[in-house]
Amino acid sequence: MRKALAFDIGGTKIYSTVIDETGSIVANIDKFSTPKTIDGIKKILKDQILKYENDVDVIAIATAGAVNNANTAVIGSTGNLVKGYNTVDFQSLSSKKVFLENDANSAAWAEYKVGASRGASVSVMLTLGTGVGGGIIINDKLLKGKSGAAGEMHFKMYSDKRRKCTCGSWDCFEIYASGTALKLDADEMLNDKTVTTYDVIDGVKQGNKTMISILNKWQNDIIIGIKGLVNIFDPDCVVLSGSMAQFTDVKIIEQEVNSDIVTTPTSVRLATAGNYSGMIGVSLLALA
Amino acid sequence: MRKALAFDIGGTKIYSTVIDETGSIVANIDKFSTPKTIDGIKKILKDQILKYENDVDVIAIATAGAVNNANTAVIGSTGNLVKGYNTVDFQSLSSKKVFLENDANSAAWAEYKVGASRGASVSVMLTLGTGVGGGIIINDKLLKGKSGAAGEMHFKMYSDKRRKCTCGSWDCFEIYASGTALKLDADEMLNDKTVTTYDVIDGVKQGNKTMISILNKWQNDIIIGIKGLVNIFDPDCVVLSGSMAQFTDVKIIEQEVNSDIVTTPTSVRLATAGNYSGMIGVSLLALA
Repeated sequence: MRKALAFDIGGTKIYSTVIDETGSIVANIDKFSTPKTIDGIKKILKDQILKYENDVDVIAIATAGAVNNANTAVIGSTGNLVKGYNTVDFQSLSSKKVFLENDANSAAWAEYKVGASRGASVSVMLTLGTGVGGGIIINDKLLKGKSGAAGEMHFKMYSDKRRKCTCGSWDCFEIYASGTALKLDADEMLNDKTVTTYDVIDGVKQGNKTMISILNKWQNDIIIGIKGLVNIFDPDCVVLSGSMAQFTDVKIIEQEVNSDIVTTPTSVRLATAGNYSGMIGVSLLALA
Repeated sequence: MRKALAFDIGGTKIYSTVIDETGSIVANIDKFSTPKTIDGIKKILKDQILKYENDVDVIAIATAGAVNNANTAVIGSTGNLVKGYNTVDFQSLSSKKVFLENDANSAAWAEYKVGASRGASVSVMLTLGTGVGGGIIINDKLLKGKSGAAGEMHFKMYSDKRRKCTCGSWDCFEIYASGTALKLDADEMLNDKTVTTYDVIDGVKQGNKTMISILNKWQNDIIIGIKGLVNIFDPDCVVLSGSMAQFTDVKIIEQEVNSDIVTTPTSVRLATAGNYSGMIGVSLLALA
């Protein structure tokens, strides 16, 4: 069976394993802190490639940042990664083919092939974590845009400049739907800048009504954003993934979205492809 | 050369003509007020079909309302058209193939084939009229969604319920970017509900600074909406069509959009396929 040496390169961690063409993980998961230098990142990749290259057919890299349509390079700014990361010549690291895709796109592809959106002609995946990622699949293809940068969830939730987004603009969906957003909701509703995302989640688990109302406000903003996306894409389903997705109530979200759209009803689901969906998705893309 | 008998069925008028496979109009443009009954609408279609059917290869209908993915029927509510319009069996009206597409989608296809977005791998067209329509083309295909209802420009501009949209929801792009929106902007900024869209346009033409500031507010909302769409789709170009598009400054819009997006720069252009782009686009789709 054909196999990929898979990587998931994020701002904090780099993961690596071997994945076969069915999407099964067939080696240990190796985990590294993301180095602050390009040489440091390259060394991790090279060491893993040296170890596994002869056993695999392709090197598949899910990465933060937009990836070009040729799947060979990271384009533009990559947020949390070291400056110049977009100049790395990934193909030079291996004699096998090296295939890149954005991490959220990769995770969306895993959901489509082996997870929650199997069989969907149109699906929208939102990764709710520290930030918000997006991966949209239309008729068996990832929506990449002219340069590979499509699927960015930086549409406005307000037009009168209330919250600065991490992207430098104002009031993007990301800054109302992310884990960071939940903290900001708590800060604003409690007038206390020391409250953390974890405080809110802990409070909700203990049945604290204030914390529940903060979580509901955050979820309501997610609902508002999803309504817009559903009117634009008319998707079969919306998949919620990422570390924050577990704190949403997808049944409530689905019900509220479907009560207030001009398109036809959609299904809202939690992701099922697991924590390594980025590596699984990029491997399935690279092996296709 | 192959030809289509084309119709454009809107809430106020029905247009009809014959269009060849190059997109050229090769007969007179016939124009009718849209009847308030289904039988009235069917009679207009039947009379035109009787007149032209033997000279054409297909009947091509651009219509208000979402059209199913088989291009055979209107689905769901159609806004300004008579109730039950979505139950019409269009194919029964002719022995030739009858092909339907949504009017905004049809116009977007005309721009893509013979107009402003020729050659674009990804394009977003916005029709700015009494309302706002949308047509999105990705890799040579219209974005239709699971049921045919995609491309609806009902994403939110605010999340705190300021303006009721014509769709029944709150604060959709449509109610900030349409001709109706410009009137509402004037109402709010002048605290005068009698001001019309035409008053604002006339004032702008005469250099009235208040009216210019109202128009700029409206254009700024269009810019905010386009930023979100560009981050989602990473399009080669955004095309503005419809009766209100002429009052925008596409160079300013392009410049402001490109200064505040996370994707790569896009081009903003006025439509060039003309007033009958709906009939041209649906004919080219039907003859393809």
